[in-house]
Amino acid sequence: MRRSERKQADPDLGILIARVLFGLQREMSRELRTDKSGPGPRHGAVLAYLDEEGSRATDLAAQSGQHKQVIGTLVDDLVAMGYVERRPDPSDRRAKLVVPTERGLDMMRRSDEVVAAIERRYAQAVGEEEFAVFKATLRKLAELQVTSDATT
Amino acid sequence: MRRSERKQADPDLGILIARVLFGLQREMSRELRTDKSGPGPRHGAVLAYLDEEGSRATDLAAQSGQHKQVIGTLVDDLVAMGYVERRPDPSDRRAKLVVPTERGLDMMRRSDEVVAAIERRYAQAVGEEEFAVFKATLRKLAELQVTSDATT
Repeated sequence: MRRSERKQADPDLGILIARVLFGLQREMSRELRTDKSGPGPRHGAVLAYLDEEGSRATDLAAQSGQHKQVIGTLVDDLVAMGYVERRPDPSDRRAKLVVPTERGLDMMRRSDEVVAAIERRYAQAVGEEEFAVFKATLRKLAELQVTSDATT
Repeated sequence: MRRSERKQADPDLGILIARVLFGLQREMSRELRTDKSGPGPRHGAVLAYLDEEGSRATDLAAQSGQHKQVIGTLVDDLVAMGYVERRPDPSDRRAKLVVPTERGLDMMRRSDEVVAAIERRYAQAVGEEEFAVFKATLRKLAELQVTSDATT
């Protein structure tokens, strides 16, 4: 059997996870009607975790698992696109907060809704209980990942 | 509760899937010792499916779910890095095959081994049975994704 046939018959974890994530990202772009001039999947590292009240870049880095430089670049993009602003942190004037604009708040609300709708559809497709079990295992694997990254 | 706290307490599917995929990609880069001049995660769309005997670009596009233009760009990169060659297809001289070089074959073997090792570690961490159930559900969701993409 050819390697590609083997992988179609028994896809490995990397293939399956990538397929689900890219499908999810495509659906989000479609639903949120973002074009090339708007935020893309990589800006999720900021927009997925950003607080309505604003967040520090270091917190966004820790939450998303991205380097602080990467977060800085993504925030620069989002500032240029009008989704966030950098403001002095009221609790520490030397620190900066990344604060969503009205447009950013709207995008955050809508993307949370789209993900929730996708989850509901998945749960219907495989059954509520199977989906809950799946998500619990996925969460264990995600936490495993965080731990093994921290030790290297 | 702040949005970021809510998401830490109950992370959504997008967050969890991205965390597992990026962890997996980081581990592969580390194990395969690829640097910035070598293939990156995005080249997985070609290297994950490529046949030892060579594959047509259209098949790689269908298997990975990427556009044919994207595959063309990734193949250009891999040709430049010495991992694949474009050769005439012996079964149709007007068509081209993407054929792995020795270096490409070695990378394909090693990355398949690394993914298999990660799967074994995950299975040990959550238990063989829970991991098998997880992978079965993940596969259903991946196939759901392919179907819903095809209809849009």
